[in-house]
Amino acid sequence: MRASGRPIGAASTEDDLLARIRRALATPRRSSSRLALPIGDDAAILRPRPGFQTFLTCDWFLEGAHFLLDRHPPHSVGWKCLARAASDLAAMGAEPRCFLLSMAIPSTHTGRWLDLFLSGLRAAARRLDCPAAGGDTTRSERVVINVTVVGECRRGRAVRRSGAHPGDAIFVSGRLGEGEMGLQLIRAGKGPIDARDPQLRKHLYPEPRLELGAWLASKRLATAMMDLSDGLSSDLPRLCEASGVGARIIARRIPGPRLSGLQARESDRLALVLDGGDDYELLFTVSRHRISQIPRRIGRISLTPIGQVVAARGILIDTGERQETPLARRGWDPFRGSFR
Amino acid sequence: MRASGRPIGAASTEDDLLARIRRALATPRRSSSRLALPIGDDAAILRPRPGFQTFLTCDWFLEGAHFLLDRHPPHSVGWKCLARAASDLAAMGAEPRCFLLSMAIPSTHTGRWLDLFLSGLRAAARRLDCPAAGGDTTRSERVVINVTVVGECRRGRAVRRSGAHPGDAIFVSGRLGEGEMGLQLIRAGKGPIDARDPQLRKHLYPEPRLELGAWLASKRLATAMMDLSDGLSSDLPRLCEASGVGARIIARRIPGPRLSGLQARESDRLALVLDGGDDYELLFTVSRHRISQIPRRIGRISLTPIGQVVAARGILIDTGERQETPLARRGWDPFRGSFR
Repeated sequence: MRASGRPIGAASTEDDLLARIRRALATPRRSSSRLALPIGDDAAILRPRPGFQTFLTCDWFLEGAHFLLDRHPPHSVGWKCLARAASDLAAMGAEPRCFLLSMAIPSTHTGRWLDLFLSGLRAAARRLDCPAAGGDTTRSERVVINVTVVGECRRGRAVRRSGAHPGDAIFVSGRLGEGEMGLQLIRAGKGPIDARDPQLRKHLYPEPRLELGAWLASKRLATAMMDLSDGLSSDLPRLCEASGVGARIIARRIPGPRLSGLQARESDRLALVLDGGDDYELLFTVSRHRISQIPRRIGRISLTPIGQVVAARGILIDTGERQETPLARRGWDPFRGSFR
Repeated sequence: MRASGRPIGAASTEDDLLARIRRALATPRRSSSRLALPIGDDAAILRPRPGFQTFLTCDWFLEGAHFLLDRHPPHSVGWKCLARAASDLAAMGAEPRCFLLSMAIPSTHTGRWLDLFLSGLRAAARRLDCPAAGGDTTRSERVVINVTVVGECRRGRAVRRSGAHPGDAIFVSGRLGEGEMGLQLIRAGKGPIDARDPQLRKHLYPEPRLELGAWLASKRLATAMMDLSDGLSSDLPRLCEASGVGARIIARRIPGPRLSGLQARESDRLALVLDGGDDYELLFTVSRHRISQIPRRIGRISLTPIGQVVAARGILIDTGERQETPLARRGWDPFRGSFR
């Protein structure tokens, strides 16, 4: 197998690699106006838009921690490393403007693996209208990726985690647990992964809710917002702590996976929707006076009220049993759990 | 040994770790005005200054590749990861505004090692007036650090690599080879490292030439500029390629290490000044009509002409022998060399 005429495992120089990455991620003309100096110099130059604020976020994507090098298709790894970083912008209502790719890879992966990775990353960059502006490449024993995304939002419109008030309704976009379900199917399977399998789609090719986040911000509809990356049972407490409030949620209202790949019992479904990470849906709160302005869906994406913000700290969940129970934080934590 | 009452090796949660990093890197009041939202939400918000362009650069700092976990003091690792990333801004004449820290560490290093690392990082952030704006933390088997620095420069004043013209003089700041010399001393030594040893200072605590870069840019004195991170023999060809020119340099003019820790013969000295990386000095070109405006030193930092830009591609070096010889590219390349 060869890639670009180079046998897999052949050592490249750093300059060769950078040149290949630069070609693969060349800025499409329509987005080049925002970059005064694209990929290639010591630093990238961004032209800020008047009246907008600049947003910065960065995100790890590590072999063994966030993906399995021998199982996950490199095209999906490329897509996902940008999509999940951009999701942090969606969480504030900002639009992506450009990204920096920092990549450390073994010499064994500078051939076909890198080409497929770059092709997935390019696809995400086009879909999200977020061109590459620069980066850094080096060698390491394991594949280590860090993506910094720069975004913009009209001054004063960004939505923070800290604005939720008692009485606000709590909403989620889309369905929760599909990311985790895809991962479980991949870990249970033995053969090659079919990237077109709809049950794997959300896990392999998540789509950050950028339009939804920007719409909620521009209409000032969300009082607080964040994206669901570690699971509702970990992320909802973070939003509540930042806002100095608590929450009550109703288990059966939380939309779960459409496709019944794994879960059979309600307890399995609940574990997926509460503790499954990697969904990149939005969690947001809306003042009770404006709930009627939230449609049931925007395009294909459902918007579902799952509970209410309350003054008393802590998260209670109504699972249909006699008593509401405190929600245990079982979402993904790299310092507690094993591989997600 | 304990740190913050936590035994080394004790597992923390990601939220605990983030809270500790946030406290350690809290924004000093004098620089908080530039950050609309410091560390803690999904993304950081930066207030761009009117009339300025925004610069972005990111830099790896990997255990085993860029530092030795069992040899390098964690305080120096913290300082250096920010200093070297900021050097890319100095290279364009931009000033740092804030940084994002992405850090993946083993659970065994979340105690005292992390505290010392953060203390070195905080010292660099204060010295460079470059506060933390956010970041991402996760677990990995090895210490993996990525720093993104955001800078600003008055519109149209940034210096690129691509502006050198035949006839321009080639300058370097400071002394080359001291970074590499420090590394060689550390690798040769066996006992604990004395971080105050002046021969190790440049290697452990490099200082990006931010004031010099900004001054050259503001006076429009440099036609092209970059920082010396991989060694002159690797970096000068990059500047020449970007500018579509070649260069002739004179070996004995290149200022080498002041302290004679290792080198004895001229060939050893040459290897250090040509191929040693990690100096973070500036390499810049100046039109022959403006050479007289370059002082011999600015503060403690010498500015030395070492050769001339020529039209013919390739780099020739005059080593005092009868014929000028082509300069071999022997600087650090992570895909070619071993640990620097």
